[in-house]
Amino acid sequence: ADADVAAASESNWNDKVKVFTVATEPTDGYNRYYRSARVYDIEVTTLGLGKEWKGGDMQHPGGGFKLNLLRKAISPFKNDPEKIILFTDSYDVLITAPLEEIVEKFKDSGAKVLISAEKYCWPDKSLANAYPEVEGKASRFLNSGAFIGYAPQVYGLLEDPIEDTADDQLYLTKVFLNDAKRSKLGLKLDTQSKLFQNLHGAKNDVKLKVDLESNQGVLQNVDFMTTPAILHGNGLSKVDLNAYANYLAKTFNGVCLLCHENRLELDNTNLPVISLALIAPQPVPFYDRFLEGIRKINYPKKSLHLFIYSNAALHDDDTKSYVEKHGEEYASAKYILSTDELDERQGRQLALDKARLHNSDYMFYVDADALIDDGEVLRELLALNKQFVGPLFTKHHELWSNFWGALSDGGYYARSHDYVDIVKRDLLGIFNVPHVTSIYLVKSSAFDAMSFQHKEFDPDMALCESLRNAGIFMYISNQRYFGHLVNTDNFNSTVTRPDFYTLFSNRYDWTEKYIHPNYSQQLNATYPIPQPCPDVFWFQIVTDAFCDDLVAIMEAHGSWSDGSNSDARLEGGYEAVPTRDIHMKQVGLEPLYLKFLQMFVRPLQERVFTGYFHNPPRSLMNFMVRYRPDEQPSLRPHHDSSTYTINIAMNHAGIDYEGGGCRFLRYNCSVVDTKKGWMLMHPGRLTHYHEGLLVTEGTRYIMISFIDP
Amino acid sequence: ADADVAAASESNWNDKVKVFTVATEPTDGYNRYYRSARVYDIEVTTLGLGKEWKGGDMQHPGGGFKLNLLRKAISPFKNDPEKIILFTDSYDVLITAPLEEIVEKFKDSGAKVLISAEKYCWPDKSLANAYPEVEGKASRFLNSGAFIGYAPQVYGLLEDPIEDTADDQLYLTKVFLNDAKRSKLGLKLDTQSKLFQNLHGAKNDVKLKVDLESNQGVLQNVDFMTTPAILHGNGLSKVDLNAYANYLAKTFNGVCLLCHENRLELDNTNLPVISLALIAPQPVPFYDRFLEGIRKINYPKKSLHLFIYSNAALHDDDTKSYVEKHGEEYASAKYILSTDELDERQGRQLALDKARLHNSDYMFYVDADALIDDGEVLRELLALNKQFVGPLFTKHHELWSNFWGALSDGGYYARSHDYVDIVKRDLLGIFNVPHVTSIYLVKSSAFDAMSFQHKEFDPDMALCESLRNAGIFMYISNQRYFGHLVNTDNFNSTVTRPDFYTLFSNRYDWTEKYIHPNYSQQLNATYPIPQPCPDVFWFQIVTDAFCDDLVAIMEAHGSWSDGSNSDARLEGGYEAVPTRDIHMKQVGLEPLYLKFLQMFVRPLQERVFTGYFHNPPRSLMNFMVRYRPDEQPSLRPHHDSSTYTINIAMNHAGIDYEGGGCRFLRYNCSVVDTKKGWMLMHPGRLTHYHEGLLVTEGTRYIMISFIDP
Ligand SMILES: O=C(O)CCC(=O)C(=O)O
Ligand SMILES: O=C(O)CCC(=O)C(=O)O
Ligand SMILES: [Fe+2]
Ligand SMILES: [Fe+2]
Ligand SMILES: [Mn+2]
Ligand SMILES: [Mn+2]
Ligand SMILES: [Mn+2]
Ligand SMILES: [Mn+2]
Repeated sequence: ADADVAAASESNWNDKVKVFTVATEPTDGYNRYYRSARVYDIEVTTLGLGKEWKGGDMQHPGGGFKLNLLRKAISPFKNDPEKIILFTDSYDVLITAPLEEIVEKFKDSGAKVLISAEKYCWPDKSLANAYPEVEGKASRFLNSGAFIGYAPQVYGLLEDPIEDTADDQLYLTKVFLNDAKRSKLGLKLDTQSKLFQNLHGAKNDVKLKVDLESNQGVLQNVDFMTTPAILHGNGLSKVDLNAYANYLAKTFNGVCLLCHENRLELDNTNLPVISLALIAPQPVPFYDRFLEGIRKINYPKKSLHLFIYSNAALHDDDTKSYVEKHGEEYASAKYILSTDELDERQGRQLALDKARLHNSDYMFYVDADALIDDGEVLRELLALNKQFVGPLFTKHHELWSNFWGALSDGGYYARSHDYVDIVKRDLLGIFNVPHVTSIYLVKSSAFDAMSFQHKEFDPDMALCESLRNAGIFMYISNQRYFGHLVNTDNFNSTVTRPDFYTLFSNRYDWTEKYIHPNYSQQLNATYPIPQPCPDVFWFQIVTDAFCDDLVAIMEAHGSWSDGSNSDARLEGGYEAVPTRDIHMKQVGLEPLYLKFLQMFVRPLQERVFTGYFHNPPRSLMNFMVRYRPDEQPSLRPHHDSSTYTINIAMNHAGIDYEGGGCRFLRYNCSVVDTKKGWMLMHPGRLTHYHEGLLVTEGTRYIMISFIDP
Repeated sequence: ADADVAAASESNWNDKVKVFTVATEPTDGYNRYYRSARVYDIEVTTLGLGKEWKGGDMQHPGGGFKLNLLRKAISPFKNDPEKIILFTDSYDVLITAPLEEIVEKFKDSGAKVLISAEKYCWPDKSLANAYPEVEGKASRFLNSGAFIGYAPQVYGLLEDPIEDTADDQLYLTKVFLNDAKRSKLGLKLDTQSKLFQNLHGAKNDVKLKVDLESNQGVLQNVDFMTTPAILHGNGLSKVDLNAYANYLAKTFNGVCLLCHENRLELDNTNLPVISLALIAPQPVPFYDRFLEGIRKINYPKKSLHLFIYSNAALHDDDTKSYVEKHGEEYASAKYILSTDELDERQGRQLALDKARLHNSDYMFYVDADALIDDGEVLRELLALNKQFVGPLFTKHHELWSNFWGALSDGGYYARSHDYVDIVKRDLLGIFNVPHVTSIYLVKSSAFDAMSFQHKEFDPDMALCESLRNAGIFMYISNQRYFGHLVNTDNFNSTVTRPDFYTLFSNRYDWTEKYIHPNYSQQLNATYPIPQPCPDVFWFQIVTDAFCDDLVAIMEAHGSWSDGSNSDARLEGGYEAVPTRDIHMKQVGLEPLYLKFLQMFVRPLQERVFTGYFHNPPRSLMNFMVRYRPDEQPSLRPHHDSSTYTINIAMNHAGIDYEGGGCRFLRYNCSVVDTKKGWMLMHPGRLTHYHEGLLVTEGTRYIMISFIDP
């Protein structure tokens, strides 16, 4: 029964108030406007849809054209003094209240026609002094983006003819400044933003207040403590309106409501054709993992045109071999290598050109620093059904992400009020933002607006600016985690196996690449740790990649010690039990390895040597040992200068070499079946007198640390 | 056949040569003389034995008396020009050659009567110039101690009468200086010591050469490269003769021959009565072990009169209780305590007086620094059948002993050529020496000669001088080891349990008193070391005395730490896992304990933690812990800052306290049945997380060291 009453009162209001707007195309802005009306049960009559635009400039969909359309549309009501006419722009307008509230505010004003006001006199500044004076911070000048009035008086306002291409605001200004007409038609300006808020130049007059529970916002005019119902992103304030609009007109109700609206259901039998553009303008760490992420994308390869742009010699080989290996699976596959000498703008543009060529429905740009962890990312972005949308990707445990929440005056990054909440996923949803990079899906409808050219902006910023200028909203969605950004800061691509050096800058990917997948389960108190000899424990710690990269680094360095007792690397210059080895210090990996010990070795130690806590572990000696039959094939019994020693097998016993292993003499116990990537941990002194057993064939590599010497 | 020829030639020689001496008493010197004649098969006729002495002074058994006896004795041969007469003194003379050699030397001289010569003109110096001149280092003056000649001429020499009490040497001198008589009787002086060597003033003229194989000596006159056959310790040279005589006249033949001569067979049914005098003039370490040594003496207590002289308050209690406990067993028992205020001379004299009173056959003096290790010592000394004999006692591993091999001019210690060989027992035998102390057996025949009085010598030196003056030989025997001397140097008797402090000065006795009797067998590789928990080893290391003394020292010190985290004794001032304890440093025992660790703990460590060598072990923390229910009753789980920790139980679990023990959490293993004097040894860090279990009653003491921190 209540619902019926509500429905009745609604229909009543839509009967009493006729709402008009003008839009020749259903732009992102128009759709947002239309939705905001709908959520307040407001029936809008859109004038001009599908017609050719005859009004002013792109930025401002105004002009005589819209007044001419409106005059014609309200003509049926021109003699109905009860009928109320509300007119607004649509591309840059948002309704934030129902008609009842709008009418109440109109009636409170005592005007017959209430017109929105702003603080800038435009387009004819010379008319400024002709305006009635206003008090304090009130807005003195007329803005033609929105007005409300009784049908006869509104009709009277539009009585005089106007060219389609003439300026609507100048037209209305002149009527208003005509004292006789103003008085006769009962014209008033909403100088205190009781109903209308023009946002240009008003940044400091308004404040968005978002309720922490519901995530619903209200925009207050803080000068007059009013809550205007209709917001107009006039002039340069469109980005501001975009930001406010993320929280207004019921986009949230605690959870993100907008996210579930207007979704695209994919028809698997007729999937969109997508151009997948992988962009590597410079060397990045973990390019192998990047390509693995690409492999994960859950989408028929036959509906994907693959294009890879590599501008880094480091990645040319992997790029080529990826295409050689997998290219056939895709609808098409093409790569550009650093040797092709295309710069980034050209590379991105070429990708776009190819997409057009393939008549792709979408382009999916993925930069080489964007590592996809969840292959559903593409389908989810498609379902969001936007012209432009990217998934939130961040650097792990950093606030660095692939979007900007706001722009500085120069068009660069500025932090928005919600940036941290979005990046940290304290607030989940989709957000209209001024800048998105690294990974995004673009509908073909936006292709023509896309440009990477700019005289000072980099290609990313150029693209975003071109889209902003085209009124194409860029959405970022953080509803689901799909992947992350690698950190390219200080990446030194000139060393052997550069990824190995990035633990500090890329802890997550380093761990994924180099730490054994079974590592973590060993921390579970119930997981049984093998104990091949008394108090000798055996852990799965690193991957084959770790072993292979580290051996490659050492062999590239090549200065293995001579196995004699004299060792200039040591403080005393003397080593009683010398091995053929290279110290981590020699290859610049000492601090990294100490961090590795702290992060990964120490927790294992704490599991097996209960009660022993030394954080961080100290280690002065971290080195790789090489055993060879013709070089140093074994190591005589000795103690280590350590509280405990770790001994990681760097290659395969029985495959890469024969013999070898570690024998603990006091327990008459040997570990000979060492496993690549597995670590032995044993007390260094006193109890664990030990020797390195004879290698009879091949080369055995082990990585040793003497911890807490 | 050879033997017969030899026997024949012997009897021939004794027929041709008649040897006479004069001795009223069979003194030690006489016996030595007589023996030397016997070993060269010389038949001596001793004149005056048992008669009252009528000659000169005690020192020189000469005088007219002996010439009168001789004249009478040779009278039967006075007309036999073939008969040769040899006369010598006996108390201070040694024969070192057979008659054949003696006669040959006599005949070579061309004299009818050859008289011994010396370098001093005595007793009438004014006659010196009347002597014929001699060349070089030859001896110019007559000595009456020995002469040889044809019977008629010797009789002629003695023709004139002489008073018994007149000086024989003056008498002979006058005959010799009478040119007519000298010529008529064919008198000559043996100025180049071809046959006779007078030793007074001749120290630099002679040299004892001892063959390293046979230990047989010859005394050479190095001025004339002669080997005199008859040695005379005239004047002040008796001590020199004593020293030479140890190696002359076949005392050795490789082994000690003298040792097996003239032994006393003990008749167990009629044993000598002995006064046992224990003398403690000042505090000594290990008085308890001294008394244990006394207990060991294998001799019927009923034949022993016990007398103990203690002049040290430290020993009064033990002295008293020894007599109270064992006094009844002895023939008599008496003690003098420090409170009696008798000085050492008085104490020793009183012992002697008591011996006379008891009509003892012997006195056995044992000073408190002489620790008897073999109770056969007394019977062996008795068997040696001397008036005075002591067993060689030395300080362990030092050259300090209880005898002197020679005297300095002032009568103090001088090193003899054989001192080191005797002390080190490279040469075994009995030796006539000028000074013996600490432990000696004296026959009653020497009692009257004994005196402890002297204006500058201490009682020991006074006694030895009195015996030397009495011609009583002091023998030292090193044939068997019977015991040793403790080192009293720097002994601080004012501390609690002073013996405990003497490891450095008395390693042997300290070890015997404080190290567990089973200690050494644990060093045997086949001895199984208990291992109550993994890599926790259990050793028998110290005695109850160690534990009791150390607890007493700590409790006397009394400043137990307060058990809080703040500890000013530590470098950082902070102790994470505090105990109630006292550090060895606080009681001045740190260096000693470190030595203990090195000497006794380290070898055990090396047995169980094979391959680990740290010598000396380092330890900054050596402390006794006290657990009490009402104080600190337990210790929370922790690691020690050590490579290995030792934990010695200082008292009895289940008797001195209830509860307690050490639990190793990682092995879920406890040692609760700790044993007093037993040591736990375990790794300190990493593997052996441990706690001290709750003491529910009594007091638990443990001694802890954190070794190699
Ligand atoms: O060969 C081994 O596994 C033992 C190596 C080792 O003990 C060392 O480098 O200290
Ligand atoms: O009470 C015990 O036996 C253990 C003592 C201990 O662990 C320590 O003092 O460090
Ligand atoms: Fe080692
Ligand atoms: Fe401990
Ligand atoms: Mn507008
Ligand atoms: Mn493998
Ligand atoms: Mn004499
Ligand atoms: Mn006991």
